[in-house]
Amino acid sequence: MNFRTDLALERHELSKEKDSEGVSFQCFHEEGMTISRIEITSQKGADKLQKPIGKYITLEIPFLKSSGDILSPAAEILAREIRSLLPSEGTVLVAGLGNDKITPDALGPECIEKLLATRHISPEVAQSIGFSSLRSVAGIVPGVLGNTGIETAEILEGITEKIKPCALIVIDALASRSLSRLGTTIQMCDTGVSPGAGVGNKRSRIDEKSMGVPVIAIGVPTVVDGVTMTLDILEKAGIDIEKVLHRNQLSIQENVMVTPKEIDNVITRAAGFIALGINKALQWQLPLEDLAAIVG
Amino acid sequence: MNFRTDLALERHELSKEKDSEGVSFQCFHEEGMTISRIEITSQKGADKLQKPIGKYITLEIPFLKSSGDILSPAAEILAREIRSLLPSEGTVLVAGLGNDKITPDALGPECIEKLLATRHISPEVAQSIGFSSLRSVAGIVPGVLGNTGIETAEILEGITEKIKPCALIVIDALASRSLSRLGTTIQMCDTGVSPGAGVGNKRSRIDEKSMGVPVIAIGVPTVVDGVTMTLDILEKAGIDIEKVLHRNQLSIQENVMVTPKEIDNVITRAAGFIALGINKALQWQLPLEDLAAIVG
Amino acid sequence: MNFRTDLALERHELSKEKDSEGVSFQCFHEEGMTISRIEITSQKGADKLQKPIGKYITLEIPFLKSSGDILSPAAEILAREIRSLLPSEGTVLVAGLGNDKITPDALGPECIEKLLATRHISPEVAQSIGFSSLRSVAGIVPGVLGNTGIETAEILEGITEKIKPCALIVIDALASRSLSRLGTTIQMCDTGVSPGAGVGNKRSRIDEKSMGVPVIAIGVPTVVDGVTMTLDILEKAGIDIEKVLHRNQLSIQENVMVTPKEIDNVITRAAGFIALGINKALQWQLPLEDLAAIVG
Amino acid sequence: MNFRTDLALERHELSKEKDSEGVSFQCFHEEGMTISRIEITSQKGADKLQKPIGKYITLEIPFLKSSGDILSPAAEILAREIRSLLPSEGTVLVAGLGNDKITPDALGPECIEKLLATRHISPEVAQSIGFSSLRSVAGIVPGVLGNTGIETAEILEGITEKIKPCALIVIDALASRSLSRLGTTIQMCDTGVSPGAGVGNKRSRIDEKSMGVPVIAIGVPTVVDGVTMTLDILEKAGIDIEKVLHRNQLSIQENVMVTPKEIDNVITRAAGFIALGINKALQWQLPLEDLAAIVG
Repeated sequence: MNFRTDLALERHELSKEKDSEGVSFQCFHEEGMTISRIEITSQKGADKLQKPIGKYITLEIPFLKSSGDILSPAAEILAREIRSLLPSEGTVLVAGLGNDKITPDALGPECIEKLLATRHISPEVAQSIGFSSLRSVAGIVPGVLGNTGIETAEILEGITEKIKPCALIVIDALASRSLSRLGTTIQMCDTGVSPGAGVGNKRSRIDEKSMGVPVIAIGVPTVVDGVTMTLDILEKAGIDIEKVLHRNQLSIQENVMVTPKEIDNVITRAAGFIALGINKALQWQLPLEDLAAIVG
Repeated sequence: MNFRTDLALERHELSKEKDSEGVSFQCFHEEGMTISRIEITSQKGADKLQKPIGKYITLEIPFLKSSGDILSPAAEILAREIRSLLPSEGTVLVAGLGNDKITPDALGPECIEKLLATRHISPEVAQSIGFSSLRSVAGIVPGVLGNTGIETAEILEGITEKIKPCALIVIDALASRSLSRLGTTIQMCDTGVSPGAGVGNKRSRIDEKSMGVPVIAIGVPTVVDGVTMTLDILEKAGIDIEKVLHRNQLSIQENVMVTPKEIDNVITRAAGFIALGINKALQWQLPLEDLAAIVG
Repeated sequence: MNFRTDLALERHELSKEKDSEGVSFQCFHEEGMTISRIEITSQKGADKLQKPIGKYITLEIPFLKSSGDILSPAAEILAREIRSLLPSEGTVLVAGLGNDKITPDALGPECIEKLLATRHISPEVAQSIGFSSLRSVAGIVPGVLGNTGIETAEILEGITEKIKPCALIVIDALASRSLSRLGTTIQMCDTGVSPGAGVGNKRSRIDEKSMGVPVIAIGVPTVVDGVTMTLDILEKAGIDIEKVLHRNQLSIQENVMVTPKEIDNVITRAAGFIALGINKALQWQLPLEDLAAIVG
Repeated sequence: MNFRTDLALERHELSKEKDSEGVSFQCFHEEGMTISRIEITSQKGADKLQKPIGKYITLEIPFLKSSGDILSPAAEILAREIRSLLPSEGTVLVAGLGNDKITPDALGPECIEKLLATRHISPEVAQSIGFSSLRSVAGIVPGVLGNTGIETAEILEGITEKIKPCALIVIDALASRSLSRLGTTIQMCDTGVSPGAGVGNKRSRIDEKSMGVPVIAIGVPTVVDGVTMTLDILEKAGIDIEKVLHRNQLSIQENVMVTPKEIDNVITRAAGFIALGINKALQWQLPLEDLAAIVG
């Protein structure tokens, strides 16, 4: 059965083997979250999980979608995990992919609104406003091919060649197989991203190979396709799908992507949380409360 | 099996009988649309369709979701159908129900933005801007109980008592059983509405009984609940649901409402189309093009 | 010279007499703000200040426009002053006047978005979420006459008759004579408001007489008309206006209202601050931090 | 007296000489607009008008701010004038400068929303949707330095090097000396732009020299500074400013930029009109009505 998903963790779950050649898996609990680390170490593992060779860190945060509570401890851990994937110094360029006029696709642009961009702040100014040493951070919202006529990869290559960052962070909305993951799971990986791939478009890949610097992708599932969701609901109800269905019976609706009714709130919460995690990962010396206040 | 839906037409489809006691059904095609008229004439019919006694007109407009074409002929027909439900003279109060900050719920508020309100325009001013006789129209966005602390019914009763309209039109987002109806079907009825009922909330009903004047409800499905969608997909794939599933197996996810990824566009298109239909229904003497230009 | 202003404080400044028959004036400093209390006690005073008989409290808060600092002490004082104008118990209806699509006019609607409406929360629910006793609060955004066809006064009368509040708070954007007051001054009064009066429209007055309950108006200047601004700039430059100008020389541009380039931020800050003040005034028993967190 | 303005036409008016060395001036009326062509041909002219050597075309369109009428003839003329400044073939990159969260600064970003980007549409697809030959157009919203940490010039250089356009169009909000020009005047020039210069910031210049391709700047005044406005109002009232004022008397408020109360509408109208003009200039073979329908 074809479950469409951008999450390495869901691919791993579907494989039904805890460990296998070319894939290592580790999972633990911290501050109410479940943290998984998957490493795909060979092409055999990549073929099995249908994801490129590299590291995938997943945070399952059930309370992210609904909570009004202070998420500081969780944000500290998110920052720590992002930091583990980044070079320790140099300018970082953060790109918010997606279309800010399509709510479930606006995760990236909304994150950039809350990003603490510092590349233009001189050390003197930084000191005068109470920040002794700020790491250089730049942000960009490249837009989407349909509106700009330019591949996101082309835009990011152009800017990367100009400002020479040490690494690129790209933020994008993802597809998952399960409704319950929408707005509650964060995936970070060092393998980059193919804009629009999760919703069936093939585009120029944004990764270390194309950009010339490490590319960290951060994403949250915000959509699920109708058939995947149906299969997932049946499976969770304990029904043996293979017995009931032939693959092609459902194919006609395969392209209908759905999102929760509360998607406006889901995006606002997830974008704010990720922006705080990135800001803390990049300005490790600053207290989280100060960053939370700046971000607002 | 429990299909959740606000559409009388879907209830009628589910009943699997074309005609039955207390329910009359008529269906025809016009300008690319399918138009259905259901009349529930007795409590027996009401029980069968789980809807109050009254008239239900449904327009199925497959091109509404996606088309950039001029929808003028369809809008003329929508106007004609709305008009058939309204008294021929007197002030009409149009209320846009729902939460304008939750995209799938913003249909009503977005319609009111494009409503041609005229109650405050004196005949002299109307004449001076080239409109010889404008019907008196008022509009209101009452908000939602969670934000205002006031039942929508209370707000509308208060305003109705003050401005004494001859009829009330209420616009609201609906739930359907089928993904393919989202943003493509318009239901008009003379039985009023229960705000939030489609998504499981019970509220004070807004109808002729509570308001003291005829209440015409106009709605478009924008959400479907996960289980209903699953059942619908299975049924369309030709699977005998009763054989496969027990009712309670799926109950756990019953409250997850989903909406299409393109909901922002769906709302914009549907709201513009309905506003044009209402404006034309109420200013029947004005050419549709002029109204389309005013609405923008 | 004709300075257009909605502020009693500016009228008092222009009168150039500290105290006069029918007008009492008191002024003090607290937490970085200047607080003025003007009471107009007779028609003679009303004629002099061109404002109705009643109490006017003005907070001058230079840091409101620009500060990212915590405004808690100022918000506590705002809450205290609002509270001094309100009955001590009973439901309070808060109305956010103005047009939410015109940035400088969106103060009222933005406040209501952040209002803690509680009228629909039962004591049991309130207790279960940790609030032992919530005062009953309702909120409404009535829209503007040009869009609704209904006078704001009519809408508020209708709702007031329905829900019987003990008092009405109306929030509206004001006009001042001075650019430097835009977004930095809050006026509260017990004399009500005439929607649109500050920008030259005459509308049905919203006050204790028309509503049948006390009406507290809270406003912030967000616009100044071009000529008033010119006169104000000349006066502050020490130029004797009467010598230089005849009244009619400038009349032609009298209707051009201007607002600061940063008006989006001005509205966001002022609306958040006033909402916090109102929420605290009405839920006096709750800590300000909790209310600040709820409001977000 | 120091009038702050980005308009060559206002500089020319202030110089009080119709023609002078290094400056040629031509002015005519067409379709209700006043069209001026200023050419600065020498450094002497550049010094006099405080603008770089090059061509400046200005359209004064009094009805742009308020009209609901069809602006087609005016849009045709705008298209013709833009076209006169552009190479006749090759990809054109259009950049919408400014901050989309600050209403008076959102002109550029709003234009790009309505741009017909075509660079990604293959000739086959173009033909299949009824367009026999589309000129290649790309669009970008680079954001502002304070949010991105990257100079707009750097972003545009990076993208320009990547996609090799034949020319760059940059759209930006301007400052004028006169309130009456806000939202009613369009300046086009071939001398490029300095982002933020109109409001007192010095930034890397975006022009043919820095970009390596012709740069056409299109702008509309949306702000005026308080002192300039005061001087302008006094001058129009027939007052001899030099007699009344010393330059430094007003300096203290020099940085307060103001915008009309109706700025939201001003931006929407101007952005739609410019986008239509650009789309027509670049797809000269397509009828204006078709482009107006696409843009919406």
